Amino acid sequence: MLGPRVWSSVRQGLSRGLSRSVGGRAPGEGRKVDIAGIYPPLTTPFTATSEVDYGKLEENLQKLGAFPFKGFVIQGSNGEFPFLTSSERLEVVSRVRQAMPKDKLLVAGSGCESTQATVEMTVSMAQAGADVAMVLTPCYYRGRMSSTALIHHYTKVADLSPVPVMLYNVPANTGLDLPVDAVVTLSQHPNIIGIKDSGGDVTRIGLMIHKTRRQDFQVLAGSAGFLLASYAVGAVGGICALANVLGAQVCQLERLCLTGQWEDAQKLQLRLIEPNTAVTRRFGIPGLKKAMDWLGYYGGPCRAPLQELSPEEEEELRLDFTNNGWL
Amino acid sequence: MLGPRVWSSVRQGLSRGLSRSVGGRAPGEGRKVDIAGIYPPLTTPFTATSEVDYGKLEENLQKLGAFPFKGFVIQGSNGEFPFLTSSERLEVVSRVRQAMPKDKLLVAGSGCESTQATVEMTVSMAQAGADVAMVLTPCYYRGRMSSTALIHHYTKVADLSPVPVMLYNVPANTGLDLPVDAVVTLSQHPNIIGIKDSGGDVTRIGLMIHKTRRQDFQVLAGSAGFLLASYAVGAVGGICALANVLGAQVCQLERLCLTGQWEDAQKLQLRLIEPNTAVTRRFGIPGLKKAMDWLGYYGGPCRAPLQELSPEEEEELRLDFTNNGWL
Amino acid sequence: MLGPRVWSSVRQGLSRGLSRSVGGRAPGEGRKVDIAGIYPPLTTPFTATSEVDYGKLEENLQKLGAFPFKGFVIQGSNGEFPFLTSSERLEVVSRVRQAMPKDKLLVAGSGCESTQATVEMTVSMAQAGADVAMVLTPCYYRGRMSSTALIHHYTKVADLSPVPVMLYNVPANTGLDLPVDAVVTLSQHPNIIGIKDSGGDVTRIGLMIHKTRRQDFQVLAGSAGFLLASYAVGAVGGICALANVLGAQVCQLERLCLTGQWEDAQKLQLRLIEPNTAVTRRFGIPGLKKAMDWLGYYGGPCRAPLQELSPEEEEELRLDFTNNGWL
Amino acid sequence: MLGPRVWSSVRQGLSRGLSRSVGGRAPGEGRKVDIAGIYPPLTTPFTATSEVDYGKLEENLQKLGAFPFKGFVIQGSNGEFPFLTSSERLEVVSRVRQAMPKDKLLVAGSGCESTQATVEMTVSMAQAGADVAMVLTPCYYRGRMSSTALIHHYTKVADLSPVPVMLYNVPANTGLDLPVDAVVTLSQHPNIIGIKDSGGDVTRIGLMIHKTRRQDFQVLAGSAGFLLASYAVGAVGGICALANVLGAQVCQLERLCLTGQWEDAQKLQLRLIEPNTAVTRRFGIPGLKKAMDWLGYYGGPCRAPLQELSPEEEEELRLDFTNNGWL
Repeated sequence: MLGPRVWSSVRQGLSRGLSRSVGGRAPGEGRKVDIAGIYPPLTTPFTATSEVDYGKLEENLQKLGAFPFKGFVIQGSNGEFPFLTSSERLEVVSRVRQAMPKDKLLVAGSGCESTQATVEMTVSMAQAGADVAMVLTPCYYRGRMSSTALIHHYTKVADLSPVPVMLYNVPANTGLDLPVDAVVTLSQHPNIIGIKDSGGDVTRIGLMIHKTRRQDFQVLAGSAGFLLASYAVGAVGGICALANVLGAQVCQLERLCLTGQWEDAQKLQLRLIEPNTAVTRRFGIPGLKKAMDWLGYYGGPCRAPLQELSPEEEEELRLDFTNNGWL
Repeated sequence: MLGPRVWSSVRQGLSRGLSRSVGGRAPGEGRKVDIAGIYPPLTTPFTATSEVDYGKLEENLQKLGAFPFKGFVIQGSNGEFPFLTSSERLEVVSRVRQAMPKDKLLVAGSGCESTQATVEMTVSMAQAGADVAMVLTPCYYRGRMSSTALIHHYTKVADLSPVPVMLYNVPANTGLDLPVDAVVTLSQHPNIIGIKDSGGDVTRIGLMIHKTRRQDFQVLAGSAGFLLASYAVGAVGGICALANVLGAQVCQLERLCLTGQWEDAQKLQLRLIEPNTAVTRRFGIPGLKKAMDWLGYYGGPCRAPLQELSPEEEEELRLDFTNNGWL
Repeated sequence: MLGPRVWSSVRQGLSRGLSRSVGGRAPGEGRKVDIAGIYPPLTTPFTATSEVDYGKLEENLQKLGAFPFKGFVIQGSNGEFPFLTSSERLEVVSRVRQAMPKDKLLVAGSGCESTQATVEMTVSMAQAGADVAMVLTPCYYRGRMSSTALIHHYTKVADLSPVPVMLYNVPANTGLDLPVDAVVTLSQHPNIIGIKDSGGDVTRIGLMIHKTRRQDFQVLAGSAGFLLASYAVGAVGGICALANVLGAQVCQLERLCLTGQWEDAQKLQLRLIEPNTAVTRRFGIPGLKKAMDWLGYYGGPCRAPLQELSPEEEEELRLDFTNNGWL
Repeated sequence: MLGPRVWSSVRQGLSRGLSRSVGGRAPGEGRKVDIAGIYPPLTTPFTATSEVDYGKLEENLQKLGAFPFKGFVIQGSNGEFPFLTSSERLEVVSRVRQAMPKDKLLVAGSGCESTQATVEMTVSMAQAGADVAMVLTPCYYRGRMSSTALIHHYTKVADLSPVPVMLYNVPANTGLDLPVDAVVTLSQHPNIIGIKDSGGDVTRIGLMIHKTRRQDFQVLAGSAGFLLASYAVGAVGGICALANVLGAQVCQLERLCLTGQWEDAQKLQLRLIEPNTAVTRRFGIPGLKKAMDWLGYYGGPCRAPLQELSPEEEEELRLDFTNNGWL
């Protein structure tokens, strides 16, 4: 329940969040915040005893600070957010806010199953320093998550969020594809600025871009595997797990696309597909964290029930990097 | 994290829980608790402002107390548990424990995404009065939820649970089917007593029964639509949403099956399929709560993002009851 | 195209087919043909050079003649019908008709993708001796196979078929589940007598039985894995791949169900699930044919692209039989 | 069965086919035939009485001859090939061969379920004038269509085909995704020149291009919805249902991609997505034929069980064209 104190905070967070994000304008008054660019969706480092290791999180952030990212995403699917407590979720936001460069955007995943919990988490994350709230589709009752239900959910969250809202569609995890008609309706909300779409269906991505072309609605590719293709149809960036390990390369791919060097972009894109699939669909977060360990970051263990890779899986993961010249 | 105080409570809860469930024997020493019978998976009543309405919960319980249920299930999928806070979840356990007859079993859904959170919730629910913990498959990272991962998860939970554990498989919500080989392995754990399977695949149900026949492992049908068929292959009961509205009929179906009156059982079963589908797959919890309103219970609203039925849906729901003579 | 000669044959076939099936009554005049009972869906034996081996087919038939089957099904999915030419399909019908006992039913799969081809194949099969035409759902354009389209298809086929039509639903092969509302509508056609449903969803089977209870519509289980459960909800028999290798046992299961010996039925059913899954879903026709080779029948090779089992698969298949005492 | 005469024809067809396709070189000797470009997958026109209307087919061809297509595809999924008899399939090849310009490629879909039937159809189609055989994945026994089985199938067909073979992957119809590892293996066969992939997964398309980069293997997009994205990752063309109605536009999109005018390409691509989806996934061949009727071609009826569009569907189809400025 949102009590009086929370609502007071909501108002404060609202002005505070917006002052950073959109230069003091009230929602709907002016241009929406510009989110174009590349973001690594950070993993959450854990100690050997499964505590959140904030020190390692900051070390990873410092290393990633070397690349021209637009910002950082926390508590996307790669952040193991379903395994964090509410207080851990907020503490991660605070720590990353403090440790990261001031000129970068902090996008925080605030989705919960209920609308009310999502509103509360969104408000709290804004207070803790998030510039943008990335809101996952609720999915446990997917059989009843019609366009109508999802539009209600996101409208309520966006109405009450002190910071701009980014829709988050990741059917591999949710078993749900946010319908395009719902996206189009929601794109008209003054506090909804874009979508991260991890489904990989570039026809759908193009369609969303086309049908929201009269809005200031920004589409981000949710994975490096289809980043070039997404730029080709009008996406403005990507939130890419692979950027946690090959940050320079993903940013280079962005630059090649933005400067119209499509041939070089293509060559680079093709070499990124296998390692990207390896650290996402194929081996999941255990694969991503293992690759981070190899490439100079702290990956470390996952929380249970996620298991570490078997030796065979680890070998296949390695090949997906070495065969493409990245290890 | 489980701190020292919690662990002390775990030990207390362990003995307390077991003293009710299995007569004071330590886990593994004797027969597992008998869970055979019919259970309604209770809905969670909400007020018009979306607060949990504990008064209505108790009223529903009193009315349901008229039927020969083996016990009550709370915070199954029909309980909107993903929409409850941790403290609400525990408060519901306490209230139901106090309000329900002493001789019935209280089965509480304690599943969370992480193993650790599931252990903590299980321990807390046992302390709050649950006799059996019903543990949902973790599913957000379903691509990595191999048999190995799931066996680790459930083994850890069962090792630390003060009360017996029931596996809970509901692929329509989780997008994951707990593999039969994992069920067979887990059936050998002294603190795992059975499974609620809501998938509706009677071949699978039969196979689980067959392959766990040397264990004291009890299989419950997860829906009234295939209750007779489940009894026919050796299930010992059912956890049936429909029992919230047609409790007498579901118990009668049990009795007909147990006494070998298969012809009458068949006639009754066939009349229950349409209303059952209506309050589960077809119209979900909004449908179940609407039917409760019609049949003398308090259904009331769902928490968002679940929407109430449209007038057309409500009419179809009504027909599924009237066409079979239940309204 | 059906030319004049064919139509003349249709008329002759019509009277001929009906005279065997329903005692000379015109369609709709009297009771529909009784199809209650167990049927093995015959495999099509091939020589080492992939010719149809009619001699082996007849040998298998003779051996299977020892069991109290209601009849034989040819060119179901286990018959490799998509690999047969039209003339082979018809020749198989003729040969089986001649070789099989006169008092048994010959059910022949006559489904093709187009309505017209299905009509023609149905007519030809009736002329060649089929008593009942089992008609698969057309599926290549499954995105457009609405209830309306399927009702049109089956109505046209049933209108023109000289012999009664059995619907055939096998979603594992077709990727399509014949909607229950279409089944209910079609059950009212005087020349549609029942359905073989291989989907394994006993709730659906019960629902079809319930909603067609005022018609003379007969439901057959499409696999031995859920045969007992299907009888329990009112099915009248089964078309079971497993009956090709464990014919006595499947017929015994039928008898136990029909005489109300549900406990013994349950024990037998449970021992049949693993071998049944092995010769259907798990190892397909190559598994079924291998088991036939072991159990005194001619299995032999499949036509390409079906491959024979690997040694590891063969070992697993064997275990599914030996572990249940059948080898 | 292939008899002696057929095999003699195979040899003749082989040299004939190759002489047109690859300039008289034996398979494997030289460069594979160049298939880069745009192709409309022709529909098969039918009369009101469901006969193939060869006259209308030729008229459509003449009109389509105005566009700079690389060639024509017949008996892809849009050609209703599962509804054609074998002789109709061959007659269509002959008629199109005669009616079309000599300098264009004729790609004919020759896939059947069995390997042998596919070989025979491929040989016959080559004799009837096909330059390239497009071979669908067999799919009825998809549970057994492992990479091994599919590699065997395509290798046998390619070994015996007088003309080069193009793989054909269309999971929406077949329920099967030709595994990338099988594609990579098959790309090394001297008589397999490329693939039409209609799945729409641009990551997969990129991966196939990347992993076959040392072969002379050509990838064609199977639909206009992801044509630009496919070019962006290295595809060499497309076989696009939409080219039957918006041929100029699809060819213009090709030109814009090939000349590096990516911004204009993007604008055009986005306007093509909705009409493309309408004539493929959404309304299928009935939608495509209706749009053909509107745009100056002969669409006409489909064979049953495909139904014509309802008035509501027709209106939605129209909107998908008018909203994008194409009607």
